[in-house]
Amino acid sequence: MTQTATRSELKVPATAAIHDDDRAVVDVEALGELLLGRWAATRRVARELAGRPEVHRIEGQSHADQRSRCFDQLHYLVENKAVHRAFPAELGGEDDHGANIAGFEELVVADPSLQIKAGVQWGLFGSAVLHLGTEDHHRAWIPGIMNMDIPGCFAMTETGHGSDVASIATTAVYQPETDEFELHTPFRAAWKDYIGNAAIDGRAAVLFAQLITGGVNHGVHGFYVELRDADGNFRPGIGGEDDGLKGGLNGIDNGRLHFTKVRIPRTNLLNRYGNVDSEGVYTSPIASPGRRFFTMLGTLVQGRVSLDGAAVAVTKLALKTAVQYSVERRQFNAGSDLKEEVLLDYQQHQRRLLPLIAATYAASFAHEELLAKFDDVFSGAHDTDEDRQDLETLAAALKPLSTWHALDTLQECREACGGAGFLTENRFTSLRADMDVYATFEGDNNVLLQLVAKRLLADYAKEFSGVDFGVLARYVVTQRAEKTLHRSGLRRVVQTVVDGGSERKSAIALRDEHTQHELLSDRVEAMVAELAGELRGVRKLSQEAAAEKFNEHQHELIETAKAHAELLQWEAFTAAVHQVDDAGTKQVLTWVRDLFGLCLIERNLAWYLMNGRLSTQRARTLSPYINRLLAKIRPHAVDLVDAFGYGPEHLRSAIATGAEKERQDEAMAYARQQRASGTFPIDEKTVLARTAKAKAKR
Amino acid sequence: MTQTATRSELKVPATAAIHDDDRAVVDVEALGELLLGRWAATRRVARELAGRPEVHRIEGQSHADQRSRCFDQLHYLVENKAVHRAFPAELGGEDDHGANIAGFEELVVADPSLQIKAGVQWGLFGSAVLHLGTEDHHRAWIPGIMNMDIPGCFAMTETGHGSDVASIATTAVYQPETDEFELHTPFRAAWKDYIGNAAIDGRAAVLFAQLITGGVNHGVHGFYVELRDADGNFRPGIGGEDDGLKGGLNGIDNGRLHFTKVRIPRTNLLNRYGNVDSEGVYTSPIASPGRRFFTMLGTLVQGRVSLDGAAVAVTKLALKTAVQYSVERRQFNAGSDLKEEVLLDYQQHQRRLLPLIAATYAASFAHEELLAKFDDVFSGAHDTDEDRQDLETLAAALKPLSTWHALDTLQECREACGGAGFLTENRFTSLRADMDVYATFEGDNNVLLQLVAKRLLADYAKEFSGVDFGVLARYVVTQRAEKTLHRSGLRRVVQTVVDGGSERKSAIALRDEHTQHELLSDRVEAMVAELAGELRGVRKLSQEAAAEKFNEHQHELIETAKAHAELLQWEAFTAAVHQVDDAGTKQVLTWVRDLFGLCLIERNLAWYLMNGRLSTQRARTLSPYINRLLAKIRPHAVDLVDAFGYGPEHLRSAIATGAEKERQDEAMAYARQQRASGTFPIDEKTVLARTAKAKAKR
Repeated sequence: MTQTATRSELKVPATAAIHDDDRAVVDVEALGELLLGRWAATRRVARELAGRPEVHRIEGQSHADQRSRCFDQLHYLVENKAVHRAFPAELGGEDDHGANIAGFEELVVADPSLQIKAGVQWGLFGSAVLHLGTEDHHRAWIPGIMNMDIPGCFAMTETGHGSDVASIATTAVYQPETDEFELHTPFRAAWKDYIGNAAIDGRAAVLFAQLITGGVNHGVHGFYVELRDADGNFRPGIGGEDDGLKGGLNGIDNGRLHFTKVRIPRTNLLNRYGNVDSEGVYTSPIASPGRRFFTMLGTLVQGRVSLDGAAVAVTKLALKTAVQYSVERRQFNAGSDLKEEVLLDYQQHQRRLLPLIAATYAASFAHEELLAKFDDVFSGAHDTDEDRQDLETLAAALKPLSTWHALDTLQECREACGGAGFLTENRFTSLRADMDVYATFEGDNNVLLQLVAKRLLADYAKEFSGVDFGVLARYVVTQRAEKTLHRSGLRRVVQTVVDGGSERKSAIALRDEHTQHELLSDRVEAMVAELAGELRGVRKLSQEAAAEKFNEHQHELIETAKAHAELLQWEAFTAAVHQVDDAGTKQVLTWVRDLFGLCLIERNLAWYLMNGRLSTQRARTLSPYINRLLAKIRPHAVDLVDAFGYGPEHLRSAIATGAEKERQDEAMAYARQQRASGTFPIDEKTVLARTAKAKAKR
Repeated sequence: MTQTATRSELKVPATAAIHDDDRAVVDVEALGELLLGRWAATRRVARELAGRPEVHRIEGQSHADQRSRCFDQLHYLVENKAVHRAFPAELGGEDDHGANIAGFEELVVADPSLQIKAGVQWGLFGSAVLHLGTEDHHRAWIPGIMNMDIPGCFAMTETGHGSDVASIATTAVYQPETDEFELHTPFRAAWKDYIGNAAIDGRAAVLFAQLITGGVNHGVHGFYVELRDADGNFRPGIGGEDDGLKGGLNGIDNGRLHFTKVRIPRTNLLNRYGNVDSEGVYTSPIASPGRRFFTMLGTLVQGRVSLDGAAVAVTKLALKTAVQYSVERRQFNAGSDLKEEVLLDYQQHQRRLLPLIAATYAASFAHEELLAKFDDVFSGAHDTDEDRQDLETLAAALKPLSTWHALDTLQECREACGGAGFLTENRFTSLRADMDVYATFEGDNNVLLQLVAKRLLADYAKEFSGVDFGVLARYVVTQRAEKTLHRSGLRRVVQTVVDGGSERKSAIALRDEHTQHELLSDRVEAMVAELAGELRGVRKLSQEAAAEKFNEHQHELIETAKAHAELLQWEAFTAAVHQVDDAGTKQVLTWVRDLFGLCLIERNLAWYLMNGRLSTQRARTLSPYINRLLAKIRPHAVDLVDAFGYGPEHLRSAIATGAEKERQDEAMAYARQQRASGTFPIDEKTVLARTAKAKAKR
């Protein structure tokens, strides 16, 4: 097995753009710039901060110490102007929503607990006051929230209800006699639960409760409520519990809260989208309770956007460490008696790590598009209802993929580094423990994917309700593209390709960009069309029968949403490849994009075969082709992870420092020296062979 | 959606055997007995012990406290006669190898750290002295090892070499002048690393080093060496480091050790398989250095066997908790305005949990067969070289599947329980953190699978080398079964089935046991045959070219080994189903076995399509059929996890106690009471609808 050294290993300059496939060179710096994206400047500032020891986690601390350190770090973030970019300029912010998220998500590199604790304070609690409240609320509380005088909670989730926010059971009943709301927790399942800052630090909260006035429930609204006095004791009627230790993120004091007939002034209702006057009359600028609920929950989307970005960032850290180790670590000497192979020269190791790099590039570029969309909406540049829905759908599509991808990557990297991967000093395990909950908070991944699927179907329902499945399917191919899927974030969709149908099409290799796109988008369209057909007429059924029908297709709904999200990632990756000028970089990045696309197709190969999209012959070429692609990308692996741009101050992993290479070099030098001095012991096997030979001669 | 209550929920007696599919009832007790297997009595004793608070982990302890508690618990295990079953009767043991492992693996239910710490002391360190040493060694050290007077280490792995034990670099050079061995660590990569008990507790070690005498290296041998004096200080020439915090298993003090020209008596060589006399002459009862190495490492197999069993046990814990929660927890009320659905009535939730239950049954029955094989070999009942090789291959096949399955299951269960799953009090996250390293220690899973693949190929090589691929493939079908694969643990293999070839075959439904077996075994055979064909002539190549050729097929090798291991699991599951007499239990268990088999086929569906084993039409029926099977199994889910036989003292999970049901009942009672008393607030939506209706009337 020939060892293929990387450019970095060979110290080849990064500048030369070489067109020859086998000598393609990645311009690491330019690629890094592309990855940094539109908010590169903010990211640089945020990364510099994230590299400082002051914001790092100290491993092995008790959770009490971890919490208190994390709390202090919030003040450090304030001092260093790291967390106010989204607040209004008149209150000391920068009114810059995209930059805010870009900077915020890089905090994960310092410590996921810090990212989430900051997210609770400014992204959830502060944001709720800002977006759901009105001017008086802003004046009264935003300054204190910004500067940490008021550490606060976002008290939405209850023990009994997480994903289904509309069903929370805490009530806020208007009391005309005293012009107050009475907050009340009617039973144990209605306790607020898993609430960050609730166990210790929270002085106040935005509490979500069913607003009831005059015997009518107007649905979930946010109320500003003081939780604790200056000494940190709960105010009368308020109680709580510590959620205690968690699987990760132990820098955050999650807890439970309950309210027993707690009175707050009527004006503590955050009344931007719904108000109650002193007569108890409810008014809202949004007539439909459904739309109002959707709008109020809209602020939650920024959490999903930033979790998507944070997941991508952590994935980059893990891959840099694992790839660096894999080009230094040697194990087994199958090919030679003298030299062992570096891990990344093993095909299986390439199969394990390189597709993860490819998926990380895809997720990174897709996140950049999500962030742009988010900035468009929150800056007000493009802020129609439809824009907001598109943003919601895009976030709901991408966050599940990237958070699961982060977990898979951290685990694969940990295993790929063997025992060293299990040591805390190499960080995989702690990061994985922290990232675990990203898959279920701010929207359970499976629930989010169903929202995506419902959106894909809703785009049909308006125009195709009652249309026969066969007709619908045909209509999809020719007409649906711009009319419907486009709104869900899909770009123009071209006609389906049935491989093997014509010679021309059969000749299109799988590595062809157009073919990949056709295969991926065709699958989404066909799945949506099939679902729409199967669910046709569901609106005419009873509520129970309709629910049963949907449930019978729940798995397909989720698979369809995933396919859609993967296509979006592929498209974002491809758009990014098109932006690259440098020929060598473009070549390598195209291979990586191909690897991403072909691995998606390989994973769903049965679908392509069953649905006649690929011939058996073509399908059989896929796996060997992926193996060849892996071998092509192998020499560029280090460049690809170096372009992620994280330095030792971010990696902080003992095996990402070259320590393994030093050890290997020392061991090899020792063997050389022994051989040279003739002190290297002979193997028994060699002795036996010699004896046998001598015997044979006699 | 109709809620399907389980037998337990309905309090239906477990005794009646009902033949009607829809009314099948599982005899939970009998099924539990079947799962307990041959060493049921030992397992009962071990589970009783594992349920005691004395052996439980205290969450949130510092790793120093965790270590010291775990150390003390080893004494508790001694006092309670929990760990000596494998030692010779004349030394106070029971000479019972199968029972020893059965009891040992149940310790994981108390705390994985305790299981592994006990494994280090008695399963590795003690076993090495027992199996590699001779009578004098036994007399001198075994009593102290058994009673914990000598806490010890199994010092094999080095920083530079884990999976490739043959290449470790620590040397033991015989010094005829003083009749001693000199132990030496030549460079940093040769430090012993990740060694349990090394950081603090280890007084002695079995040290593995290259035995060199008269300038000849006789390969890796074990040496007994005292590490620390009575005060716990390292003896002269010995040093070390603490491995520090790990991703899990922090009850064990893993550490590094190095030796600088440390002298030990010649007789400290554990000399059962290789001896050096006072003249420095090496002798061994095993002439071949390769076979000798294999034999000496043979004791490691019991570690793999017990990890396989421990992984299965933990999987059972996790599934019981997650399934219990999933039939109590309600979320979203799609089907009714009044009542929310329990999670397990959602199709996706069934898709997530039920196949994991099926795979756990398969892994559990397969483990029982492995344990029987292990007992056969270690009791001496069937202890030929071939028996040992079969045992090694079987362990190498099953341990990767079950340890990965445990990680997947713990993660899926944790996510399926949402935020509650992330709380330490529900145990998923801590168990997952602890089990993580099971995938790479005592043999990295990917390395083990390659051993399996090489064995599968080696069984060919002897008889088919040089045979043309086409001929070979045909030969396989008719002849190979008993001659070759049988030795690797496969049972009699029947002829391949090409679906759609004949009407009769086409009519065989996928749920037919015979069809499943044909599909699964045919895949293994075809993959082995294809690999053998591709690798044909590899022995004629240069070492480097041969290695490169193997590397080009490494991914296929591993996939082939996995397919083989999955088939073994399916066969063990099926054999177990055949043992069941009770009709209801047999029916449900058959569905579960079908689910296991069909999920395997679904996962590899592309292969079956590409290789003409399934028609497109048949393949399309698979996923809907699995969905129907899930719905059939759903009512029995609680019974299936209850049969695992773990009680609250083992689960120790807040959400496995019925607490969620209590909360749900309380909430529902509250709503009922409100409705009855007329204090239930009207929804704004309802008010709006009424107003609209009234308007329309006017």
